[in-house]
Amino acid sequence: MNIPKTSIPRVVIIGGGFAGLELAKRLGKQDVQVVMLDKHNYHTFQPLLYQVTTGGLEPDSIAYPIRKVLKNYPNSYFRLANVESIEPENKNIKTDIGDITYDYLVIATGSRTNYFGNENVKQNGMAMKTIPQSLNLRSLILENFEQALLTNNLDKRNALMNFVIVGAGPTGVELAGALAEIKKGILPKDYPDLDIRQMQINLIQGTDRVLDAMSPKASKKAEEFLEKLGVNIWKSAFVTNYDGYTVTTNTGLAFETETLIWTAGVEGATLKGVDAKELLARGNRVKVNEFSQVEGFKDIFAIGDVAYMPTEKYPNGHPMMAQPAIQQGKLLGSNLAKFLQGRPMKPFRYFDKGSMATVGRNKAVVDLPRWKFQGVFAWFVWIFVHLFALIGFKNKMVVFVNWLYNYIRFDREARLIIRPYKKKGREAAIQE
Amino acid sequence: MNIPKTSIPRVVIIGGGFAGLELAKRLGKQDVQVVMLDKHNYHTFQPLLYQVTTGGLEPDSIAYPIRKVLKNYPNSYFRLANVESIEPENKNIKTDIGDITYDYLVIATGSRTNYFGNENVKQNGMAMKTIPQSLNLRSLILENFEQALLTNNLDKRNALMNFVIVGAGPTGVELAGALAEIKKGILPKDYPDLDIRQMQINLIQGTDRVLDAMSPKASKKAEEFLEKLGVNIWKSAFVTNYDGYTVTTNTGLAFETETLIWTAGVEGATLKGVDAKELLARGNRVKVNEFSQVEGFKDIFAIGDVAYMPTEKYPNGHPMMAQPAIQQGKLLGSNLAKFLQGRPMKPFRYFDKGSMATVGRNKAVVDLPRWKFQGVFAWFVWIFVHLFALIGFKNKMVVFVNWLYNYIRFDREARLIIRPYKKKGREAAIQE
Repeated sequence: MNIPKTSIPRVVIIGGGFAGLELAKRLGKQDVQVVMLDKHNYHTFQPLLYQVTTGGLEPDSIAYPIRKVLKNYPNSYFRLANVESIEPENKNIKTDIGDITYDYLVIATGSRTNYFGNENVKQNGMAMKTIPQSLNLRSLILENFEQALLTNNLDKRNALMNFVIVGAGPTGVELAGALAEIKKGILPKDYPDLDIRQMQINLIQGTDRVLDAMSPKASKKAEEFLEKLGVNIWKSAFVTNYDGYTVTTNTGLAFETETLIWTAGVEGATLKGVDAKELLARGNRVKVNEFSQVEGFKDIFAIGDVAYMPTEKYPNGHPMMAQPAIQQGKLLGSNLAKFLQGRPMKPFRYFDKGSMATVGRNKAVVDLPRWKFQGVFAWFVWIFVHLFALIGFKNKMVVFVNWLYNYIRFDREARLIIRPYKKKGREAAIQE
Repeated sequence: MNIPKTSIPRVVIIGGGFAGLELAKRLGKQDVQVVMLDKHNYHTFQPLLYQVTTGGLEPDSIAYPIRKVLKNYPNSYFRLANVESIEPENKNIKTDIGDITYDYLVIATGSRTNYFGNENVKQNGMAMKTIPQSLNLRSLILENFEQALLTNNLDKRNALMNFVIVGAGPTGVELAGALAEIKKGILPKDYPDLDIRQMQINLIQGTDRVLDAMSPKASKKAEEFLEKLGVNIWKSAFVTNYDGYTVTTNTGLAFETETLIWTAGVEGATLKGVDAKELLARGNRVKVNEFSQVEGFKDIFAIGDVAYMPTEKYPNGHPMMAQPAIQQGKLLGSNLAKFLQGRPMKPFRYFDKGSMATVGRNKAVVDLPRWKFQGVFAWFVWIFVHLFALIGFKNKMVVFVNWLYNYIRFDREARLIIRPYKKKGREAAIQE
């Protein structure tokens, strides 16, 4: 990989997500060599992916070049690489651009979509974990409308205009809300010859409430918001199959649709070589101690979604969200320095800042540790928090201009089919 | 295509470029049915494509949804379609989504890259006429840098970091300048372990000056600007071959490069059925009279790049640029109304507003009919004119924010490899 071997220890970080990037920023100032590997050359701000899908934002606004973060640190290196496996016995990493050895390895690979073994859903459904996937879904939605115009077969047209979202976590809820706003605001103007009543948004949830990781009050209000926007909510139902035409559930429901969007589960994106059965916990996450060390290894760490760190307060591990990842990255940054100096490390304590989700214009729900609120003010809080969490001044500005414009004009401009999905994308897209 | 047949005449416009869109806006207010066909669902602002390639702008900023223009006119329809052929005898158009008949047909298909029969260059080189092509080129440039890091073979690294641009018209010059600014401003920061002196930008021009459609003064100054930026200019040379590794010219030059960008020629994007040999002039353009009627047809018109309308002042047809296209679209809008009422049409007179090109920060050349100037002021004029020519308030705002940021920070943020090109794109990309 052409990275100089120096006398200072080499820390290889796999993954430039929230956890990995935060760690790299801390380590950059210390006396270690940092090598970051990622299969993309950019960090993705995942909480806003649904806005890329629904045309509210452009992909570049929520992505940030990893090199632009690392360039501030002379001992830091980035390589665009797909990691194939880890060889802990040789302290070696195998990738598609060659091997690299490490003194310390940090697995910050995040999570990937979990289909719970349902191969049909995986083959025929759409996921929304990466920017290419979000762009594919954007193209598919727009291509569906274009196709719906062309057919006189009412069933076919219904199937094209029926969007089934599986999983009512934040991603599912936010996507359902954004689609409902497209139905209200864009469809009648752009496609006056379609009957917008045919556009249906069905949200299927396995448990008995949406946003079930938030407070019951937030769930109740989010449901109200969704219903007001015309989203059909189906609770306590599991999807059993999707053959590309019909979605079936264990409760006997059946939806004819050309578009199933799967936001119903994620699992740890583990790596070959550090995935022995005894190392993994539920959700395919790697067991770590409270210093983020992988069980049984002194020189391998895991942080963020991929790490399973059960504590008294979080007996099933921390939530797979940005905040625990950021906090673990930060702490490991200072802990590694201590570790290298032989000083004791500080155990991780998660500081829960709360959680929030937006359903649509003026409609959001916010759970703070001591205060839960919903509605217009919650929506402004959501906007404010997300704007400030974006990396980079330019991204903040561009997103602000876009949101202001969308808010004033009830519009979403980014409805371009840059790369058609239906015609050529499906095969290639599954891999991404 | 599910478009109602009414008693008012149907005008089918093929192509939503500058000419087609301008015409559609005029016809929308008149008593005709307008059907626009395009293979993209958006209008592309081609003059700024090179900025998408070089990461200064995002693709959505220079594209505009065609439906958003047409939605203001109740008798206007858009269909996303690839036109396969015209059957003038049946007044019928064959497309990949079915047939459609017309009362009047307007060909506004623009131009496509002309390789002058050099199949090797076509197969191995990159073009830059569409947004997907520009994004492919953006990915390729960034992938080259990533690859250059990995090799110790100096020749290979030189080839990866050598960019050969063929054709020093506005596109070639602007691209060369932007690449030179990347070399100066981005490369040393993002790739500190690359020797930036290895990055070479070679601009090959067939005639004896760059920007040869502009004034000699503009050419001279543009050359000075380019040389100051470190671009190597090779004049009076034709590329004879490119096998993917070596570019050769008729003057005996040879460049080892992984990237040849072909901006050396365009030709009319003619359609099967209206491409009989006697209908076509040089540059594969369709001969029209001064009312834009295709020779020998009363009901078929052609406007913009694809139309060949020789006049006294322009014996070889009008320049293949935005301005003649816009003006022809406008005039045909009012002429068609007259034609339908049996009133005499007005002949086309091109009003030359001048031309301009930018080489880089504070460096542009402007030729107005009565005043030619170069440098900082020219650059501000260029910025101003292009900002105002963009369609849509939001695009103007977002481009403005981006340019302001890039200007202040000497930066280009959009250096993301969203869709890798080298790994999977080449085959698919050739078609786009």
